[in-house]
Amino acid sequence: MAQKILLLPGDGIGPEITAEARRVLEALNKRYGVGCEMETAPIGGAGYDAAGQPLPDETLRLAREADAVLLGAVGGPQYDALPRDVRPERGLLAIRSELGLFGNLRPAILYPQLAGASALREDVVAGLDILIVRELTGGIYFGQPRGIRTLDSGERQGFNTEVYSESEIERIARLAFAAAEQRQGRVCSVDKANVLESSELWREVVERVAADYPGVELSHMYVDNAAMQLVRAPKQFDVVVTGNLFGDILSDCAAQLTGSIGMLPSASLDEHGKGLYEPVHGSAPDIAGQDKANPLATILSVAMMLRYSLGAGEAADRVEAAVGAVLEEGLRTPDLQGGNRPVGTREMGEAVAGRL
Amino acid sequence: MAQKILLLPGDGIGPEITAEARRVLEALNKRYGVGCEMETAPIGGAGYDAAGQPLPDETLRLAREADAVLLGAVGGPQYDALPRDVRPERGLLAIRSELGLFGNLRPAILYPQLAGASALREDVVAGLDILIVRELTGGIYFGQPRGIRTLDSGERQGFNTEVYSESEIERIARLAFAAAEQRQGRVCSVDKANVLESSELWREVVERVAADYPGVELSHMYVDNAAMQLVRAPKQFDVVVTGNLFGDILSDCAAQLTGSIGMLPSASLDEHGKGLYEPVHGSAPDIAGQDKANPLATILSVAMMLRYSLGAGEAADRVEAAVGAVLEEGLRTPDLQGGNRPVGTREMGEAVAGRL
Ligand SMILES: CC(C)[C@H](C(=O)O)[C@@H](O)C(=O)O
Ligand SMILES: CC(C)[C@H](C(=O)O)[C@@H](O)C(=O)O
Repeated sequence: MAQKILLLPGDGIGPEITAEARRVLEALNKRYGVGCEMETAPIGGAGYDAAGQPLPDETLRLAREADAVLLGAVGGPQYDALPRDVRPERGLLAIRSELGLFGNLRPAILYPQLAGASALREDVVAGLDILIVRELTGGIYFGQPRGIRTLDSGERQGFNTEVYSESEIERIARLAFAAAEQRQGRVCSVDKANVLESSELWREVVERVAADYPGVELSHMYVDNAAMQLVRAPKQFDVVVTGNLFGDILSDCAAQLTGSIGMLPSASLDEHGKGLYEPVHGSAPDIAGQDKANPLATILSVAMMLRYSLGAGEAADRVEAAVGAVLEEGLRTPDLQGGNRPVGTREMGEAVAGRL
Repeated sequence: MAQKILLLPGDGIGPEITAEARRVLEALNKRYGVGCEMETAPIGGAGYDAAGQPLPDETLRLAREADAVLLGAVGGPQYDALPRDVRPERGLLAIRSELGLFGNLRPAILYPQLAGASALREDVVAGLDILIVRELTGGIYFGQPRGIRTLDSGERQGFNTEVYSESEIERIARLAFAAAEQRQGRVCSVDKANVLESSELWREVVERVAADYPGVELSHMYVDNAAMQLVRAPKQFDVVVTGNLFGDILSDCAAQLTGSIGMLPSASLDEHGKGLYEPVHGSAPDIAGQDKANPLATILSVAMMLRYSLGAGEAADRVEAAVGAVLEEGLRTPDLQGGNRPVGTREMGEAVAGRL
């Protein structure tokens, strides 16, 4: 039976990179009968332009119906002056929340062909392979009450609420432990339990969940120390599990360790394994439409989609192998180090599709 | 007139390293008539042991009376099982809040003699000199309401409040702009204004304050991007100003970039320039009492104290020059790279005092 994929190109380089991901999916359809039906809808700035909303109702309806969603990127300078609630990021936050995509998987992998690209010394990062599991629909991103109020003194005060319930913590912890079982069997839970009550509960629940995964070793780290350890000795980590805000910060830090953020995919999953897949990088408006963007993070997001939402692990392996092959052959978009065949967005996508 | 310094050795290596700082102050007294009177009081675990409280009333009283406070470090495994409100960190948080120490200055400097110690490539960090200005008495660290409550469903929920008022943002911004005027004239304000209302107000107020410092260039960065940029190209920063929680994370990350966290001092200032000075590193219980700890961060904290709270800039210069001299001569505690004269805590302190 055909599987329905919703493509959300978004803004900036989004349309270019999702076009190459589509090319890869079409090649899989043709050559291996993977059977993906694709549809496209606007989100972010494109959603605002089309329907006055960063997440148009019709886009959300299609996303609910789809088996998986592939997103490019959102945001651009032309939308910076919009009122807060229609800015492009709001579309991203809304779709995460509406689809219940609580589990954000962000691998940070150093590709051996790109080892020299990191700002870190080669011995510190060679072979790096971390998985950050970030809670994505709770915490201070969505907590109530929030806003800006005027105090009796006349001055204004901005406030937000960090909040986690036991069930929210439990489900993200389970996702992390299950992932660790397939990897090196180690989970490091990151919080700020020496200061925050929300982290105290976080730590307690993660401890409790750990009892169900006797094969996995659990450690805890304060977020400030985790930021230090990521720089000092990142290979000490296998799976890192943390809340929405800490995950936002640490996953970008971890991604940057590889020096190749144009290579990193991500998955955001709901309770049933349905997911939204997107590159870790942003919409890069400065190079949009110039055939310069690296489509590999989006193509690798397709691989995650095949594996986690479409039950097509073999096809996922093929995509990842094809990406490895083109790097090995020396193809490089402008953001990537080394190689001997500079290529554009489209040529890179065609090369991967050709190696499947 | 004699200036009153309160020494708070704290726990772990705290007593050893503050003893060397004291030695340096005594040498300054003797040789240059700096005129510091020193008194000692317990804090952290030591406060709990002595008086059942991590910040004993008597310690707080002495701190209020002092012209400046020098702290070692707090915390240790023997206190981990204590109830939350008497744990060592509580003493630190309480003294910050009670003394109104809203402005935390954390320089991250790469000493040329220690260039090889960083996990980052030498070209990325050579000459690094960043100042992180962290708000220290507000934000989610102290925001109300906070706690763990039981929902109607029966499950528990942990919550904390991130909160900043205009006046809190304004005073920390002024501190950062004033510091930038003495440096390269650039302030980068870090927030998460694309998600949090508290950050939205933060950004607005920082913009407004900037108008009073026409010689300083202001930029804004989201915290996730800042964590990336610190790893990618840390030298792009001069002064970074941010809230309590983001500052906690980013300052530790920045400190780690230097690879020599045993070298980094900090200052926490109130509205009148009175301050508490402490090394950025922790209490390192694993090496406590073994004459292995590096006293230089504490000694450099003395230099900051002389400069910011005691109006003794010349003495501060002398201390910093003496530290440079002993590094140049090859003296190294076990945490430091290179050199040819391995020394212990005491010998390092004596050497600095001898070079004043
Ligand atoms: C664009 C922004 C709202 C978003 C976030 O903070 O979650 C982004 O930084 C991310 O990590 O996907
Ligand atoms: C010990 C802890 C409460 C403290 C903080 O989070 O402020 C520490 O990490 C620091 O940065 O001084």
